[in-house]
Amino acid sequence: MKIRIGIIGGAGYGGGEAIRLLLNHPQAELVFVHSRSHAGSPLHAAHPDLLGETSLLFTDVIQQQVDVLFLCLGHGESKKFLEENKINPSIRIIDLSQDFRLGESVPGREFVYGLPEMNRDRIKQASNIANPGCFATAIELGLLPLAKAGLLQEVYTTGITGSTGAGQKLQDTTHFTWRANNISAYKTLTHQHLKEINRSLKQLQPAFNSAINFVPWRGDFTRGIFVSSCVTVDKPLDEVKKLYADYYHGHPFTLVSQDTVDLKQIVNTNKCVIGLEKEGDKLVVHSAIDNLLKGASGQAVQNMNLMFGLPEASGLKLKSIVF
Amino acid sequence: MKIRIGIIGGAGYGGGEAIRLLLNHPQAELVFVHSRSHAGSPLHAAHPDLLGETSLLFTDVIQQQVDVLFLCLGHGESKKFLEENKINPSIRIIDLSQDFRLGESVPGREFVYGLPEMNRDRIKQASNIANPGCFATAIELGLLPLAKAGLLQEVYTTGITGSTGAGQKLQDTTHFTWRANNISAYKTLTHQHLKEINRSLKQLQPAFNSAINFVPWRGDFTRGIFVSSCVTVDKPLDEVKKLYADYYHGHPFTLVSQDTVDLKQIVNTNKCVIGLEKEGDKLVVHSAIDNLLKGASGQAVQNMNLMFGLPEASGLKLKSIVF
Amino acid sequence: MKIRIGIIGGAGYGGGEAIRLLLNHPQAELVFVHSRSHAGSPLHAAHPDLLGETSLLFTDVIQQQVDVLFLCLGHGESKKFLEENKINPSIRIIDLSQDFRLGESVPGREFVYGLPEMNRDRIKQASNIANPGCFATAIELGLLPLAKAGLLQEVYTTGITGSTGAGQKLQDTTHFTWRANNISAYKTLTHQHLKEINRSLKQLQPAFNSAINFVPWRGDFTRGIFVSSCVTVDKPLDEVKKLYADYYHGHPFTLVSQDTVDLKQIVNTNKCVIGLEKEGDKLVVHSAIDNLLKGASGQAVQNMNLMFGLPEASGLKLKSIVF
Amino acid sequence: MKIRIGIIGGAGYGGGEAIRLLLNHPQAELVFVHSRSHAGSPLHAAHPDLLGETSLLFTDVIQQQVDVLFLCLGHGESKKFLEENKINPSIRIIDLSQDFRLGESVPGREFVYGLPEMNRDRIKQASNIANPGCFATAIELGLLPLAKAGLLQEVYTTGITGSTGAGQKLQDTTHFTWRANNISAYKTLTHQHLKEINRSLKQLQPAFNSAINFVPWRGDFTRGIFVSSCVTVDKPLDEVKKLYADYYHGHPFTLVSQDTVDLKQIVNTNKCVIGLEKEGDKLVVHSAIDNLLKGASGQAVQNMNLMFGLPEASGLKLKSIVF
Repeated sequence: MKIRIGIIGGAGYGGGEAIRLLLNHPQAELVFVHSRSHAGSPLHAAHPDLLGETSLLFTDVIQQQVDVLFLCLGHGESKKFLEENKINPSIRIIDLSQDFRLGESVPGREFVYGLPEMNRDRIKQASNIANPGCFATAIELGLLPLAKAGLLQEVYTTGITGSTGAGQKLQDTTHFTWRANNISAYKTLTHQHLKEINRSLKQLQPAFNSAINFVPWRGDFTRGIFVSSCVTVDKPLDEVKKLYADYYHGHPFTLVSQDTVDLKQIVNTNKCVIGLEKEGDKLVVHSAIDNLLKGASGQAVQNMNLMFGLPEASGLKLKSIVF
Repeated sequence: MKIRIGIIGGAGYGGGEAIRLLLNHPQAELVFVHSRSHAGSPLHAAHPDLLGETSLLFTDVIQQQVDVLFLCLGHGESKKFLEENKINPSIRIIDLSQDFRLGESVPGREFVYGLPEMNRDRIKQASNIANPGCFATAIELGLLPLAKAGLLQEVYTTGITGSTGAGQKLQDTTHFTWRANNISAYKTLTHQHLKEINRSLKQLQPAFNSAINFVPWRGDFTRGIFVSSCVTVDKPLDEVKKLYADYYHGHPFTLVSQDTVDLKQIVNTNKCVIGLEKEGDKLVVHSAIDNLLKGASGQAVQNMNLMFGLPEASGLKLKSIVF
Repeated sequence: MKIRIGIIGGAGYGGGEAIRLLLNHPQAELVFVHSRSHAGSPLHAAHPDLLGETSLLFTDVIQQQVDVLFLCLGHGESKKFLEENKINPSIRIIDLSQDFRLGESVPGREFVYGLPEMNRDRIKQASNIANPGCFATAIELGLLPLAKAGLLQEVYTTGITGSTGAGQKLQDTTHFTWRANNISAYKTLTHQHLKEINRSLKQLQPAFNSAINFVPWRGDFTRGIFVSSCVTVDKPLDEVKKLYADYYHGHPFTLVSQDTVDLKQIVNTNKCVIGLEKEGDKLVVHSAIDNLLKGASGQAVQNMNLMFGLPEASGLKLKSIVF
Repeated sequence: MKIRIGIIGGAGYGGGEAIRLLLNHPQAELVFVHSRSHAGSPLHAAHPDLLGETSLLFTDVIQQQVDVLFLCLGHGESKKFLEENKINPSIRIIDLSQDFRLGESVPGREFVYGLPEMNRDRIKQASNIANPGCFATAIELGLLPLAKAGLLQEVYTTGITGSTGAGQKLQDTTHFTWRANNISAYKTLTHQHLKEINRSLKQLQPAFNSAINFVPWRGDFTRGIFVSSCVTVDKPLDEVKKLYADYYHGHPFTLVSQDTVDLKQIVNTNKCVIGLEKEGDKLVVHSAIDNLLKGASGQAVQNMNLMFGLPEASGLKLKSIVF
């Protein structure tokens, strides 16, 4: 029997990526895709690559005969959606916005932060998931083993993101002419994901009270996040590597590489790849994810798999783009 | 029961892409990957994105307990390989080089040109497949319905290809510094695929005796081929569209779009998407494929599926990169 | 004494590029830059690369104490501007729009088509210039010598353009996420530059009455146009090359290469580079320009130089980007 | 009277860029360009964009009738060149390698570190210049005002560089197929420029004894360096901005922006643009240069201008690529 799924906000990047994954997922049945702006159009009107993949049309009707809803809405919109629409309490929710990542709730629905590498057991029991942010996922996966070991100190992080992180809306900073071959910083030291990052790190190392000094950059590519975090650690690299290997043992998507890592190893997959280097007492952790997959819709499907007792990687064995 | 597969020449682009597909193919078992240069190394030594996907090592031993061999060798190397190595006659061959596309053979092995949209029934009966070239696939799929209808006249084609078409070897024209943001023409009117293109078109329209004037361009991207072919056709666009729709009916990967087409609709998939436009008596056919998939390893797997009686699209439901 | 210049429409791409050239031009004085949307702001507010280059502010006042006005307005806007504003008749006009390229005029002002390689003597005498279109420049420079020799027949042309050709306005097809690594066709066989191209070719070969079958593509780069035109020519390549060499002798910016040509040879310069190849009776002419320079503002400055008796290349010795 | 110049190692990126600048420099005469590999060929054989710019040929003869030699050789090669070739002592040397940046010398030749924003007066008196490294230039220009004020503490820096930084030689990491859309780290915390950076910072703040923790990234573009440095500073942003404004007052190429900065503001120019942001006690300094210009050949010409008493910006008013 298949899990019956509805998507709310199916015309954007996150919704489109969820559709792509769920159409090919062996235990999933995509029942409806909701979009006010595109109701009545075929899915390939918004997502031309879906031509020939499905005959589904976007709808503006929210059906209640589903097992789970993916909310692929803008920040602030998910909370509003749940407040304004009566959703059958038995329907589970996976929310891709930031509305419930810091412990927020709506009546009748408490949310678990959906980072399987930290909360897998709780996710398996959860009815509602707050899916982590893209930069948050990359940075947290790079630091969790240190926090677990109580070793985390002040962190200096630079991260670069593809343009899909900025969404579908046309903006000056997503104009091709401006962004091609360009690099720029934004939200220096003030990125909104810092809150959920701090919350996660404190979950594992409650005494952690230092800063994550995070400088985000806009990259001149479409998909992916690459992060380098520098932190003082008073242990030899071998021991650090063992910490990471132990921590991620049994987690199918987060891999600690013994070689150099690069972004395209993981683009178009649900993986996070981690590289570790050390000079003196400074550890540098590189971590890379696809912001739309492990950083959004892929992780959402991973959470769905866990919630419904499916193999964690079901529907997520994706061919990387690699080149 | 699974099809047992060996890959010869597994360290290059074509071999790597075949590995990626076959590792996830539900009816395939990748038995061995042969590479003289990488024997003994894990597959992810040559293909870093395969980290965590498989524990297979490259080998320099050719095992005979397989059902089919994929030859992912350079042009000229496949013929040599079959002449120098005794391959069990019951093992089928899918050759990705150009060595057998024009009717060439080796003792005991005749080859069928593996373009399913033209030769599906013969492929189902074949023991040996000559997998088409990448530009050839894109151009032929754009013109076959006209040839079938006997309407083909002199053709003017421009096509642009990603850098993976030039292979893994470092060359001046694949140096990032040179190729980024650059466009150039090469092999103007003399591309080696013209022979197999002409051969295919004559198979459907034996009287066709005009030129395919083909100007190939190097593109500043890694994956994909986009082709526009201009030809005089004395029929209204509606009728031409019907010809194409009829021709490709029942072919799962070749789609005639009613909208504008663009390359990224199909990158990282096995699809070919075709767009048709007409002004006066001039028809322009746009066709787009991923050169490594429908133009190489994806089509090879499609051929394998047909040869072994599997669903044609098995293992080829791929998530597009789209962005 | 310096030529005093005003720019109308200085906040767009064409205006910005004109500013960049004129600020460094040894015989030019940029007197004012008009922009309704940016009046009062420093030029670097619209063009951040001009930080430190000038203290000029955008103005909404049209000063009449200038020798020449560059109209860098949208198509249709130039005619309107000249009709609605009383411009001192002694002020010369260089118009970058398409409003006057086909012989249109406003009372008191006749326009010369500003392609120096065709009309240099007339430009030297002109008071008003209609600056050619970008694709038109690339295609015409590739074909003029054939037309001059009366050899031109039906032409099949494919051209690819950078995103700056689509202007500053945000559009779906200039969204970075869509355009990166993408190729698409547009205005197939119907591009608006075909009119001025035909007009120019007939100026040199009045009996020319065949089609220019032109398929424009959007490229995944920002600057430059690369065109390949295929035409039947019944002369050996040597003779054709001599025709081109003779035609462009003494023209400083249009170069016939003996080697292969590529786009980045000329990006960020005012050059056009031409390559010639022949197989059988088919000639292929490759031509490349920077759409914002030789295809717009650079050619405008070249025309200004000619109109005012300056060396043709004054202010146009530009360092190419090359990489 | 013009400065007579010879270039040693003219076929590489640094040499090519020096040629481009010097051909257009109003007070420079490029007398000869030395290259063993290309002797006898025209300059455009190695640098196709120079077609039509000059009729100079590469030579393998070192002429002594020049005022200055630009050494554009690989690291280690400059010292060897000066030891093996007898250069007239009156000829000045500008060396672009790292051979003399840390106080090294050859008999009869002491070198001044050629960062005009730090050493302008000494450069004006110098006979031999060690031209700074590209990353070194970007990082130092971002930090010098703090060091001058004695405020510098431990620094955390991430920098990204275009592929031209890796030179002309074909390498796995400059293969287009690998590098396009990719990001990776290299020489983490161990980049060779750290030595000259530390040396410069100590020149201004002798007591500085903390680490510059520098993580270099390879970017998927060809030209430019963008750096963000994070450092604890116990002063309000206004005062920091004043420090920077005062420090760079009168330096024509280093600009402190009041707005956000991005890489393409300065690509294809000799500028460095600096942006300053502060949260709590953490200052982030962004700095951007073109690695081949302010990071190499442009700075070399700037140094030449200073050595020969020319205006500092002579020949360096370059049109930016901007798009």
